[in-house]
Amino acid sequence: MENAKRNIYLKTLIIKEAVENVRKELNREALIKSEIIESQNVVGRTNAEAIFAKYSSPTFHSAAMDGIAVTANKTFVAREGHPLVLEYGKDYLPVNTGNTMPDGFDSVIMIEQVVKIDETKVSIENPAFPWQHVRRIGEDIVATELLYPQNHRFSAYDVGVLLSAGIWELKVWEPVKIRIIPTGDEILDFTKRPEPKAGQVIESNSQVLSALAKAQGCIVERIPPVPDTIEAVSKALKESLDAGITLTILCAGSSAGSKDFSRRAIEEHGRVIVHGISAMPGKPALLGLCKDNKGVERLVAGAPGYPVSSIVAYEELMSPLISWLERDFVAERESIDVELTRSIPSKLGVEEFVRLSVGRVNNKFVATPLGRGAGNLTTLSKAHAVTRLPLNSEGAEQGKLVKATLVRPRVELESTLVCVGSHDNILDLLADELMTLDKPIRLASTHVGSMGGLTALKNGSCHFAGTHLFDPETSDFNHSFLKKYLPEKQITLINLALRHQGFIVAKGNQKNIKDIHDLTRNDVKFINRQRGAGTRILLDYHLKQAKIDPKQVLGYDKEEFTHMTVAVNVLTGTADCGLGIKAAATALGLDFIPLAIERYDLAIPSEYLEGATAEPKMLALLDIIRSESFLKRVEALGGYETKLSGQVQVAKTK
Amino acid sequence: MENAKRNIYLKTLIIKEAVENVRKELNREALIKSEIIESQNVVGRTNAEAIFAKYSSPTFHSAAMDGIAVTANKTFVAREGHPLVLEYGKDYLPVNTGNTMPDGFDSVIMIEQVVKIDETKVSIENPAFPWQHVRRIGEDIVATELLYPQNHRFSAYDVGVLLSAGIWELKVWEPVKIRIIPTGDEILDFTKRPEPKAGQVIESNSQVLSALAKAQGCIVERIPPVPDTIEAVSKALKESLDAGITLTILCAGSSAGSKDFSRRAIEEHGRVIVHGISAMPGKPALLGLCKDNKGVERLVAGAPGYPVSSIVAYEELMSPLISWLERDFVAERESIDVELTRSIPSKLGVEEFVRLSVGRVNNKFVATPLGRGAGNLTTLSKAHAVTRLPLNSEGAEQGKLVKATLVRPRVELESTLVCVGSHDNILDLLADELMTLDKPIRLASTHVGSMGGLTALKNGSCHFAGTHLFDPETSDFNHSFLKKYLPEKQITLINLALRHQGFIVAKGNQKNIKDIHDLTRNDVKFINRQRGAGTRILLDYHLKQAKIDPKQVLGYDKEEFTHMTVAVNVLTGTADCGLGIKAAATALGLDFIPLAIERYDLAIPSEYLEGATAEPKMLALLDIIRSESFLKRVEALGGYETKLSGQVQVAKTK
Repeated sequence: MENAKRNIYLKTLIIKEAVENVRKELNREALIKSEIIESQNVVGRTNAEAIFAKYSSPTFHSAAMDGIAVTANKTFVAREGHPLVLEYGKDYLPVNTGNTMPDGFDSVIMIEQVVKIDETKVSIENPAFPWQHVRRIGEDIVATELLYPQNHRFSAYDVGVLLSAGIWELKVWEPVKIRIIPTGDEILDFTKRPEPKAGQVIESNSQVLSALAKAQGCIVERIPPVPDTIEAVSKALKESLDAGITLTILCAGSSAGSKDFSRRAIEEHGRVIVHGISAMPGKPALLGLCKDNKGVERLVAGAPGYPVSSIVAYEELMSPLISWLERDFVAERESIDVELTRSIPSKLGVEEFVRLSVGRVNNKFVATPLGRGAGNLTTLSKAHAVTRLPLNSEGAEQGKLVKATLVRPRVELESTLVCVGSHDNILDLLADELMTLDKPIRLASTHVGSMGGLTALKNGSCHFAGTHLFDPETSDFNHSFLKKYLPEKQITLINLALRHQGFIVAKGNQKNIKDIHDLTRNDVKFINRQRGAGTRILLDYHLKQAKIDPKQVLGYDKEEFTHMTVAVNVLTGTADCGLGIKAAATALGLDFIPLAIERYDLAIPSEYLEGATAEPKMLALLDIIRSESFLKRVEALGGYETKLSGQVQVAKTK
Repeated sequence: MENAKRNIYLKTLIIKEAVENVRKELNREALIKSEIIESQNVVGRTNAEAIFAKYSSPTFHSAAMDGIAVTANKTFVAREGHPLVLEYGKDYLPVNTGNTMPDGFDSVIMIEQVVKIDETKVSIENPAFPWQHVRRIGEDIVATELLYPQNHRFSAYDVGVLLSAGIWELKVWEPVKIRIIPTGDEILDFTKRPEPKAGQVIESNSQVLSALAKAQGCIVERIPPVPDTIEAVSKALKESLDAGITLTILCAGSSAGSKDFSRRAIEEHGRVIVHGISAMPGKPALLGLCKDNKGVERLVAGAPGYPVSSIVAYEELMSPLISWLERDFVAERESIDVELTRSIPSKLGVEEFVRLSVGRVNNKFVATPLGRGAGNLTTLSKAHAVTRLPLNSEGAEQGKLVKATLVRPRVELESTLVCVGSHDNILDLLADELMTLDKPIRLASTHVGSMGGLTALKNGSCHFAGTHLFDPETSDFNHSFLKKYLPEKQITLINLALRHQGFIVAKGNQKNIKDIHDLTRNDVKFINRQRGAGTRILLDYHLKQAKIDPKQVLGYDKEEFTHMTVAVNVLTGTADCGLGIKAAATALGLDFIPLAIERYDLAIPSEYLEGATAEPKMLALLDIIRSESFLKRVEALGGYETKLSGQVQVAKTK
């Protein structure tokens, strides 16, 4: 639209094609040379030539047990009750494990089966068979045999084999060298420990990519951020090429915007092979080849600026190319079948990568899709797994089994408690305490409001739900909702805490908000919670009591999903007021006008609490809630009362 | 038996008990302190306290697309065919991705949906909804929120989250420090690049344990080998304790032999908690606690001297304790179900760890047990997986499905060709060539003789078999055996090479062995091949032709499993003569007296060679066999003819 030059994407490619198109153009022999390293440092490296054993192991026949060396065919007459007497030197010689077998002896009898008669005589009651308890020459390794074909990736065990075979050093492929060049005027160099202002972003993508590449065995360096000009980006790229870097990654600036110079920089020094892949996130990724000052074509990648897109570009495009350059098998993560707790819609024609929070509930893996914003890195750091929806898919429905690739160790899934429902800051304290146990437990907590939590319980897709649903008819919390929505389930309600709900307002409360009637004022911008949230229900109840029509509330239709994001809206002046818990106001240094005290309970399937179906992780959580040290931490948050905490709640009788 | 003092094992413990007994005695807080590190270096480390966000991300509402910022409720009238004209400054402002949203604007319309009219006017045909393409404050991270509970093990993604939230450094647990002390008079220091003599062993266990521990995040050092005296071992242990080492590993000397001082050394400075576990290999393992000069009890382990036992002791005993000290979840490897190609007998009352060579054949994982000698490290380096037979098991039968834990990446299994049968040195060349392909292929080759190979084909437990079975009746190779033993299978025979078989004798042939009649001489010690080996059948045929009774051959009953081990017997003087291929004699610089030329074929299920069932890995192998460069490498070995190589062999018609 604007006058500034915009890039036009090359034909977008599916990921496999994109990788293959680049691979075909790469000259691996020119890019990766070999080097000599010592055998003890070989783990994770790949040999550049076949390796043959120099020595045999063992080098001679040797005793495999402590005992006596004998000649088997002289012992055949021994049997139980008919001991055979052997003479030192002539019939036997003592040996320890690892000793060379003395000449003329071919077997060993274990010390435990030998009876000593005197200094020169012993007796045995069991014959030896030839080569019994003897490790023969070359039993493990035969000199000159092939130990490893070329391009073998060495394990820890291999170090032992190499040294045992007398291989002290060997020729391996050099690691892939990577230079990461962060670009952009809005990014702040994290090494300067900056405080971000509006429109500024702390540059962190380089460090994530660096950590991923190091895990693949690469040598990675990062230069300080380069400004958003074609000259600066082009110069930085040229320097990297001439420094012999295998893969230069330009961080951000890969898409088609007016200030995206990665493509032009690549074109100045070489050619673009891929611009645009049919994947979300990751679409604007860029791959090209540029010549260094010696005429060798080196790999250049443009990673998108959004953190998740940049990771997808690395993992899906760069990582397989690095594996190929390293002569490694393409890394592959374990995948499992998970049941979706919510539907995931998807666009036809793009491959979508959706991050999932996963836990094992009732012997199945249940997965909740996390936010899909390409900018939200926490959706990846919180994810246990990622599922990919293929090009030709319009999505996956709730309850369906889908394949998901693990991004955290599988053992963590087994040690995860899944909590779905209303958000409360105490859940964070619980998460912290659970991780201090001898067998640590992870709390995977998804915030979808109290009603969302009950739905998850109904579907068996969580271990417990956090809920604070007020029923005006009974003046009670939660019970009547369980009865209505989960009549078929045995659920126990255990109180986590009583908490103060009220209006979160700016520090000093300049707008002088005193009670619910102030929400109707024209100068008061409200920020609401989403439908199904207990806090929203509480608001609606109080509005109704005060006879206020929601339409009178400016901002009633603007929704946030947690207390904390409501508080942030107030902190930044986006809103003047929101309903939430005191802990959220306290955390951000805001003022708080109390409205009500409510009961925040954990709704737990009763089967998890006793008998054979009891869930040890659930019981561990209750132990924490009932501990004094935990309750002290809760009270220190402010805005909570703990007199009911840990107690089973029964329905009020009218 | 001898006068020297011997240790007596404490009650042997099952592994789980052993680990738990030690864990209960360890004071984790005294052993592992915390330290501050920078966030970009945090991968694989574990935080010692909960981490809360310092900044929100994004810090302000920001544009999520390139385009124009608008106010959503001013755009509602726009629709297709009814464009709405917007005025610069009043109705819209241009924004790029990442820009702060200008005050008063709440949504972004993508550049692609905007039509430029002139420098100050644009038109749109689609309304915006509130917050469309806007990243809201705190969408990813809210300041003060819990980012990570304590004891979280950081991933690469977490680095991005920490930096984005303004966390520049954090408190993590110190890594576990390990010192490895090799002991023993018979061991040679690998750093001196020694040449082992009879009874000597190159010390390599320290380096395998070191590599395993480093992979777990430990800091590892190794001191030069310590002699086999209680004084030397005790002194080295004391120094390690006082240096603040978390875990000292005494390598070898942990069993009950007269020269095993590890236990006494531990008792001099502290107490033994575990001596002896009910596991094979690994039984003599030792764990204790010893006080340093400040009174802190530190962990000491005695690892058995046999390489595989030492690894089991590390992986099963030390590794879980290290994980616990590091506050990590206990590492867990992926396990798969495999079908056993051979029965594995096992002793009741011990847990047995059996190494397996695994490949995927016909959509199932087939596993061949590798040698069980605790001294044979190659059985572990060649293994893809390990299966454990529990205490109460007497073994597992052929054809049974058992659980096996992967010790190599799973992707390698899918890329493995499984070859079972007769051994030939050309298979090593093939293995080497297969690894140079763009998609490398591993050759897992098990040597059980030609007949063993046919059995594996029959059971569908290999991709192909190497065979050279001579049938005197037809004067042909292999065909009649396939007809007899695999009548139901369609097998194609493809020649690998013609090879010279003959007598392998010492260099210079001092014993003057000229032909088969010399085997009957009293001064000629023969070394034979195992039953079912093609070479054994060839020998028997020639003995029969020469009218020699096997009983006349000294050493006829001594068997080896490969040409190379036969040659090693001759090299070391254990035997004077063996029947084998010329390549084996050449490799070890021995002399060779030709006896016959034979056809070594690959027997391949015909389905793998064409149509929908064709196995691409098999076809890749044939391409190599038919390549000129490969045939040159074969001829360079000596003793081969390649005129039939790669050609399909049809049965001779009489």
